[in-house]
Amino acid sequence: MSRFWNARVHQLHPYIPGEQPRGDDVVKLNTNELPYGPSPRAIAAMRDACDDSLRLYPDPTAQDLRQAIGTRFDMPIERVFVGNGSDEVLAHAFRALVAQDAPMLFADVSYGFYPVYCQLFDQPFREIPLNGAFEIDIDGYDIPCGGIAIANPNANTGHAVSLDAIARLARMQPDRTIIIDEAYVDFGAHSAIPLTQHYDNLLVVQTLSKSHGLAGLRVGYAIGHPDLIEGMTRVKDSFNSYPLSRIAQKGAAAAIADTAWLAQVTERVKRTRARFVGRIEALGFDILPSCANFVLVRHPDRDAGALLDGLREQHMIVRQLSAPRIRDWLRISIGTDQEMDRLVETLEALGI
Amino acid sequence: MSRFWNARVHQLHPYIPGEQPRGDDVVKLNTNELPYGPSPRAIAAMRDACDDSLRLYPDPTAQDLRQAIGTRFDMPIERVFVGNGSDEVLAHAFRALVAQDAPMLFADVSYGFYPVYCQLFDQPFREIPLNGAFEIDIDGYDIPCGGIAIANPNANTGHAVSLDAIARLARMQPDRTIIIDEAYVDFGAHSAIPLTQHYDNLLVVQTLSKSHGLAGLRVGYAIGHPDLIEGMTRVKDSFNSYPLSRIAQKGAAAAIADTAWLAQVTERVKRTRARFVGRIEALGFDILPSCANFVLVRHPDRDAGALLDGLREQHMIVRQLSAPRIRDWLRISIGTDQEMDRLVETLEALGI
Repeated sequence: MSRFWNARVHQLHPYIPGEQPRGDDVVKLNTNELPYGPSPRAIAAMRDACDDSLRLYPDPTAQDLRQAIGTRFDMPIERVFVGNGSDEVLAHAFRALVAQDAPMLFADVSYGFYPVYCQLFDQPFREIPLNGAFEIDIDGYDIPCGGIAIANPNANTGHAVSLDAIARLARMQPDRTIIIDEAYVDFGAHSAIPLTQHYDNLLVVQTLSKSHGLAGLRVGYAIGHPDLIEGMTRVKDSFNSYPLSRIAQKGAAAAIADTAWLAQVTERVKRTRARFVGRIEALGFDILPSCANFVLVRHPDRDAGALLDGLREQHMIVRQLSAPRIRDWLRISIGTDQEMDRLVETLEALGI
Repeated sequence: MSRFWNARVHQLHPYIPGEQPRGDDVVKLNTNELPYGPSPRAIAAMRDACDDSLRLYPDPTAQDLRQAIGTRFDMPIERVFVGNGSDEVLAHAFRALVAQDAPMLFADVSYGFYPVYCQLFDQPFREIPLNGAFEIDIDGYDIPCGGIAIANPNANTGHAVSLDAIARLARMQPDRTIIIDEAYVDFGAHSAIPLTQHYDNLLVVQTLSKSHGLAGLRVGYAIGHPDLIEGMTRVKDSFNSYPLSRIAQKGAAAAIADTAWLAQVTERVKRTRARFVGRIEALGFDILPSCANFVLVRHPDRDAGALLDGLREQHMIVRQLSAPRIRDWLRISIGTDQEMDRLVETLEALGI
């Protein structure tokens, strides 16, 4: 509290990110990072960018990076927006493309940043409950609203809706922006990017932080109708002309182009996920079926907080989330086979 | 225009940054970049950071970087805020620390982003005219307001106000945040950072884009009372948990620590500035005395736009700014001695 804070600041309830412990003596399964380093081509491109040319500002329009993204998804550059992590991209979309005179809609269990953006931008919102199986029910979104955000696969549950359902949603709300947040799409869901050519109200947001192993670089992007991109660009250019460094632009372009690397690492994660699900089910855990690089689990006889603490004592960090409906669950990121084996063995040692 | 843009987006007049031409066959004196590459220690630190650890999120609180800044300025870490360029730092300060029920004040000739932030945040503002010598007159700011931003040295004029004047301003408006934007301070003005320990309403913002030769990295910071820092942090954590990449945090910390390098390059720029001012005065130009790495010049007999075009034909880019009072002037960044000599010779060839 301070007399220098304006009224807006007092009202905020900032997002609390997962812990980033210092030192590397922990098994870190709390923030859905890839267990493998990024594409070697991306690393080489970033190293090359660390030179005297850093004295110059980056390209404020990030042409080369947007071109690389456009090439990958067969889209012209005017359908591509880039930002400092998909958090910034989502923030600009929430600020620019949502009507303020009606509530924005998103699920009651989803990415915890959505209500935070709404508070920051004085945007009313309404949370639509997941169904009893923790799945998004598209029919619940057929009400007057200012815009919609769907994480697909959904954050924290891993459930994915079909492209048919997304197309139906786009037709259901033709005058409202539908933001499809595909942070986890590469681990087993279908991207709605092709649909953006048929529905001018559909904006798909992706990130390099998960499947591309570049959480530490901070690059995200959005694809949609040029009018949507232009609206976000107006906000971006009223906030920060150069959100992406020269290094980030070059590294991200190289990462995006290395599709063979992406296919290989996401396949590895999916294999590890299947293997881990089998082992942890055998321990008696309930598990939500996941298309993402995490699983949400609950043990019928054990308190989630106690398990969290027990794992932490053994230097294993997983995450307990604050949404009321999943407070009894733990979200476990998919690491390497070795890390997941160690987790299972630690749970066994905790008496499960 | 689009039916998906909300009312806010329609009202925006985004900032237009200086051109970043592709290719390197031009002498680029339009965006006040350093003509020398950054500290070799910073480059080494950034290269080291380009490795598999990029799969992990950065430290959201940027402890090591804030510690490096705190050490340099003899300040505890809770007085230090960092962001994705001083543009983002200024944006968060404008959003968090300015009272919305009264106009924010800044000069009629200053950094062109100030009114843009105000539009983005629905913040009323009032521009206080520079005096006849294009200097900031502190007495003009003794009126009811929501907050004040002073660029010192001032953007586009290069004039610096004294620390006495800043202290007087802080006492004049004890309940309003005074933002001192010191993007150019290392080229010949005195920093108000020590004053922040005596005035809890003073926030000093600096950047690595100018004197540190790291425009391409995007790192800025603010120093002030912990309450000011906490207010900005609440906004930052409601917008983007990780605004600075792992590479940016490490490179910036190394750059900040290399004070010997900084002293050397800023001395070189000051010498070149003095030499250039002498030569261009001899050509009959009017020049505003500058404490920054640019000078504002005007020729009594030649139109600024025509000179700009003539220089561009010879692959030399300088900047004409949009503020009405300086539309007849050209802003010329201080490059190397060789670049400034070429500029003078090109002007001579244009018949001056």
